[in-house]
Amino acid sequence: MTSLPTDQIAQQLAFLVELDKLKSILRQSPLIDQSRKENSAEHSWHLSLFALVLSAHAREAVDTLHVVKLLLVHDIVEIDAGDHPMHSSSGQATQIAEAEQHAAERIFGLLPEHQGRELLELWREFEAAQTPEAIFAKALDRLQPLLINTLSNGGTWTENGVTQQQVMERYGPVIARGSPALWEVASERVSEFFAAGESS
Amino acid sequence: MTSLPTDQIAQQLAFLVELDKLKSILRQSPLIDQSRKENSAEHSWHLSLFALVLSAHAREAVDTLHVVKLLLVHDIVEIDAGDHPMHSSSGQATQIAEAEQHAAERIFGLLPEHQGRELLELWREFEAAQTPEAIFAKALDRLQPLLINTLSNGGTWTENGVTQQQVMERYGPVIARGSPALWEVASERVSEFFAAGESS
Repeated sequence: MTSLPTDQIAQQLAFLVELDKLKSILRQSPLIDQSRKENSAEHSWHLSLFALVLSAHAREAVDTLHVVKLLLVHDIVEIDAGDHPMHSSSGQATQIAEAEQHAAERIFGLLPEHQGRELLELWREFEAAQTPEAIFAKALDRLQPLLINTLSNGGTWTENGVTQQQVMERYGPVIARGSPALWEVASERVSEFFAAGESS
Repeated sequence: MTSLPTDQIAQQLAFLVELDKLKSILRQSPLIDQSRKENSAEHSWHLSLFALVLSAHAREAVDTLHVVKLLLVHDIVEIDAGDHPMHSSSGQATQIAEAEQHAAERIFGLLPEHQGRELLELWREFEAAQTPEAIFAKALDRLQPLLINTLSNGGTWTENGVTQQQVMERYGPVIARGSPALWEVASERVSEFFAAGESS
């Protein structure tokens, strides 16, 4: 059991150094200017701003800063487990969940015990998607790539031949569960995007 | 004056889309693995985690989540004004400050008025470095590149021929003002880094 402040700081810095690796985990989504793929660290920053700006539209009242905390930590497990796009086959879901669980234990385990447990709980809360904050965080995690895709020539939809109906089915329930108001606007953007494609 | 929720959401999404550009603003610091330069969006995410994990070491008690908010918005002005490394000449300081002020007004001005004002105030609070939260946020904004440099072959120090004494003078006052405990550990890392260089 460590208790000296300098020992604590050493553990905390080791954790923060490990986090640098999330900047090299690439997602399927492009940047809006299509210059490259987005990484999970900058994605997490972007989502935190989505939370700061959009939380008044959550279906149930949320503690905005708790939503931010969930989003800051939600992708850290990808350092070990990688990013798994939702358009891929879901047959490996259990394997992925296990890899993420191990990753969470290893990475948050670098921290002093009480703090590691706290961050592990935040990650579990996000994954379980049962609290108003986690439900809203999950909605934002779907809204951001939807918005990017509509503005970057279809992004992952075009790449994977995803239809308008598939977009509605894959994004709709998660976004609408967190925020009917945001889904109203987002679904219009989707319709406009696919309508423009048909007429071009 | 807009008041319909969908109009508000349209303004908010326009702001969030604009933020995507921060992912293309490159800093001088490398990633720790030295594969490329760090960008300001992923840097802001990394710093937010520094705040979540290290805030107990602040000189004065801080509201952790307020520190996180300051760090999430602190670099947004770089979308227009660019990143200005602290090792560059400081002759242009006034010009840079003016460009950042214009940038803040334009970018936060994309939001509904009350919300834009709120984020502008957060950015001003960070810049002024007078509240305990802003003082600590500034300390973290110096600690993170210091840590990266010690772990990436000297990073910007090696690139710019910066001496140990210059590092102590440029990082020390800002970090120690926010957290004597963190400066104690950080200054040791600096000494170790330069000592290793001399013996190699």
